[in-house]
Order: sequence, then structure tokens, then C-alpha cells
Amino acid sequence: MSQAITSRTNPRLKQLRAALNGQPRLSDGLIGLEGEHLLEEALRSGVEVRTVFLREDRALPGSLPNHPDFEVLTVAKDAFVSATETPQGIAALAVPPLHDVDDLLRGRPLIVITEALQDPGNLGTIIRTAEAFGATGILTLPGTVSPWNQKALRASAGSALRLPVVAGDRSTIDLLRGKGVRILAAVPADGIPATKAGLVEPCAILLGNEGAGLSPSMLGLADERITIPTPGPTESLNAAIAGSILLYEAARQRAGE
Amino acid sequence: MSQAITSRTNPRLKQLRAALNGQPRLSDGLIGLEGEHLLEEALRSGVEVRTVFLREDRALPGSLPNHPDFEVLTVAKDAFVSATETPQGIAALAVPPLHDVDDLLRGRPLIVITEALQDPGNLGTIIRTAEAFGATGILTLPGTVSPWNQKALRASAGSALRLPVVAGDRSTIDLLRGKGVRILAAVPADGIPATKAGLVEPCAILLGNEGAGLSPSMLGLADERITIPTPGPTESLNAAIAGSILLYEAARQRAGE
Repeated sequence: MSQAITSRTNPRLKQLRAALNGQPRLSDGLIGLEGEHLLEEALRSGVEVRTVFLREDRALPGSLPNHPDFEVLTVAKDAFVSATETPQGIAALAVPPLHDVDDLLRGRPLIVITEALQDPGNLGTIIRTAEAFGATGILTLPGTVSPWNQKALRASAGSALRLPVVAGDRSTIDLLRGKGVRILAAVPADGIPATKAGLVEPCAILLGNEGAGLSPSMLGLADERITIPTPGPTESLNAAIAGSILLYEAARQRAGE
Repeated sequence: MSQAITSRTNPRLKQLRAALNGQPRLSDGLIGLEGEHLLEEALRSGVEVRTVFLREDRALPGSLPNHPDFEVLTVAKDAFVSATETPQGIAALAVPPLHDVDDLLRGRPLIVITEALQDPGNLGTIIRTAEAFGATGILTLPGTVSPWNQKALRASAGSALRLPVVAGDRSTIDLLRGKGVRILAAVPADGIPATKAGLVEPCAILLGNEGAGLSPSMLGLADERITIPTPGPTESLNAAIAGSILLYEAARQRAGE
């Protein structure tokens, strides 16, 4: 193995730091993966891992391939800590899975569209739930946090490495509609009850920002508005919860139950 | 107004710190509330606020009563920062809402029981969703994070100040069963599908730890095991998501849909 990287300003370490911060322009478009679990998940999901960074005091985990295709760089303790937040002493650079809008349209489309969803935990959780309920993918609109943010990636439990997550804008929504996908805006009140919304046909669930909800212009784009009936004294649901319940409801209706 | 507290070791400030850290024995059993929003929510929910701590550079918010029943203490900046995490410069000590098992049994019981649920965000989110779906309350078993943890309280969006949240143990579960409540253990696979689980009758949904799930002994206490059907390639759902979907499913069945 080559000599350990000791300088915090080492260009490879800078690249890792940029990737972990979700700055793809500074990381040559690569994404960062922190910790053994995410790295294993990425390899299992067929993601192309380019470089693994190991803190000098630890070895390559036994769970990883013996003759890896990726480069392995050892990094001195201080320099490693400066670039990552993981206490596990392992991180990697990988090629992001490449998906386009056509991937969202496979089979009978069930898509989540997020407008300005800002909490990485919420986005990651929605991606995880979407994979569990057989959704075809996620369309993120401007203002939505990156799925490669480490918090989002962790909250997705690796689902972001498998389920198509595509960035787009209003024109992407028009394109989906042109392919027969109904656009359903999730609103906290006065929409069609989710149970009667007809989620069996190709559809996309439009979710808004945690605080402000959907913008008026985005609401204007929707074919219908849908609401989760809440019999309790509050109608308040967290954004990830609302999105997850609508995905469950769609899966329930599709199973004919 | 009295002179500002300047010492970090001031006993009242120590009491606030203990309350915010969820150490009721050191706070005389009082709970802590950080930030204007939670404080307003508490007053609106009829919670008895005893003391408000104001950073010396800010005034009592106009949204609070003009002639409050509570004591107001001003605190010098450094001392305030040492006790709280809020950048808002306001915190309070309040009497926790008092609930017992009978409160969980009002009307047609729909209860969530948490075993060793450790993430405060997950517990708070479940409390918020439970209130929205008309659940009668939450029973927390040993190992579950305190609902008065500030993260849990924030994630509950104030619902923890209204919905009965009761701490108990195995004997409490026996007591619930004695009152005709069916105990349904949520498991990731091989349980009765949630849609067929019969959630209309009085029931309690038993949720386990985020990583380990339910302990064998707790599984042994359950009348039935229920599972959320997940048609996708993974069956993985976050604990708060699983709990929330089961609450939604119960509300859906109870509405006869």
C-alpha cells in the first residue's frame, strides 16, 4: 500500500471532503460515502466505487472484496478527521448511479415529487419508504436537498443507491403528465381523501416544503389535490410521514385491498 | 423585574439545565421548554408554566399573556447560553401534564406502546402522528427516550403536551389487556397484513427498538403479530414511519373506508 496521506490539503482528500459536503462540482461529480455500512450497501447495489480512504489505524473490512477494483488510500488520523465525520475511519468516493426520467416511468409509475424539501432526514426517509412500497422513483425539484447529502443517504438506509432519484423542474412534470402520469398535490386539508384518490393508475405525489408546504405555482400545476384524513384534534403531519402514508395507501390500493 | 442572573451555578439555572436534559430528579420533576414556539404551544395547551427564563437582551414575546401567572427571570447572556441550546433566548420550566393508564383507555382505545425506542425524533414524530390520527395515547416501556427530551418535544410539534404519554412496564400491558385491549406486535415480516389485522377494536400497537426490533419476551406478550405489506425489493421501514402507517391504517379502518 502507498504511503499515508498526511496533509489536510491533499487534493484527493479535498475531493472527498467536497463529495461528502454534496459539492459535486468540486468532487469531479463523484459522491461520498461515510462508514462501512454505506460502503457495503453501495457495493452490493452495484455502485462503482472509485476510491476508498482508510484511516491509517484500520484495515479494509473483511466484508469488502479481497481484490477490489477500487483504489485504496491510507490517511493519517488528523488528516482523516479533518475530512469526514465518521468515527469509523473509512470513507469512499463513488460514481453516482445514473438515472433519467424514463426510469421513473417503468411499469406502472408511482413517483414522489419533492418541492423544496429541505431536511435531509425527511428526503432520505421518503426514498427508503418509496423503495419499500415499490415506487418507481423520486423527482426532486429545485430547493430540495441533495440525496447524496450524508444525512439523507443514511436516512435512506441505502435506498438512494438503488431507487431512481432524478433532479428536474416544471418541464419534467409536464413531461410526466404527457406520459399519462396524474400529478397529485398533497395538501393538509380540503383535498380529495387519500383513500378515494385513485392511486392505482400512474401517478406522482407532489410534496412541499416542511414549513411552507407547496408553492401556489406548483399547486397550479397539479391535476388534483389530495389529503390524508386526520380524525384527531390536529391535522399536523411531518412531511416524511405524509409522503410515506401516501406511498403506503398507493401500495394498498394497488394490491386491491 | 429582578436583577439578572449572572452565575452559571445559580440554582434556578441548574434546575433549568437539568429539566432540559431530561433529569426530572434534579429539576424537582419539572420539564424544560426551549424557544418561543414551544412555550406558546404549552400555554395554549393549558400546561402550567412556572418560570420563564429570558436572556437579558430580549423581552417577553408579545404572544405571551400580559399579566402572566409565571415568574420571569432575566439571565445574563453567558449564563443563559451555558444552560440552553436555543438561539432564541427564552426557555421555561413547566409542570408536566399528568396522565395515567386510565387516560389511554378513554373511548375506543388506540394506543402505541414503545419498547426501547431510542431516537427522540422518532418518539416525537410518533406522538405527533398519534394525535393526528385520534389515538388515545402512548405507553413508553423502559429504554424508551423521554418525551420531554427537547428533540422529542420539538418533533412532536407540541403534541406531547396534549396527548397522554404514560411510562409503564409489562404489568401495564397486562392491565391494558385486562381491559379488553388487544396487543399487536409490529414485526417487519410474517405477521398478519396490517390491512387484515382488525384495528377497529380496542388495540395497542407494540413498536420495538430502531435496530433490534422487539425483544423476544415482548413478542411473547403480544396477542398477534402484524406486518405492513411492502411490495418493493426491501421491507425496510424506519420505526417512526412504521408506527405512523399503522396509526393511519387504524384510522382508515375505523372510518370504515
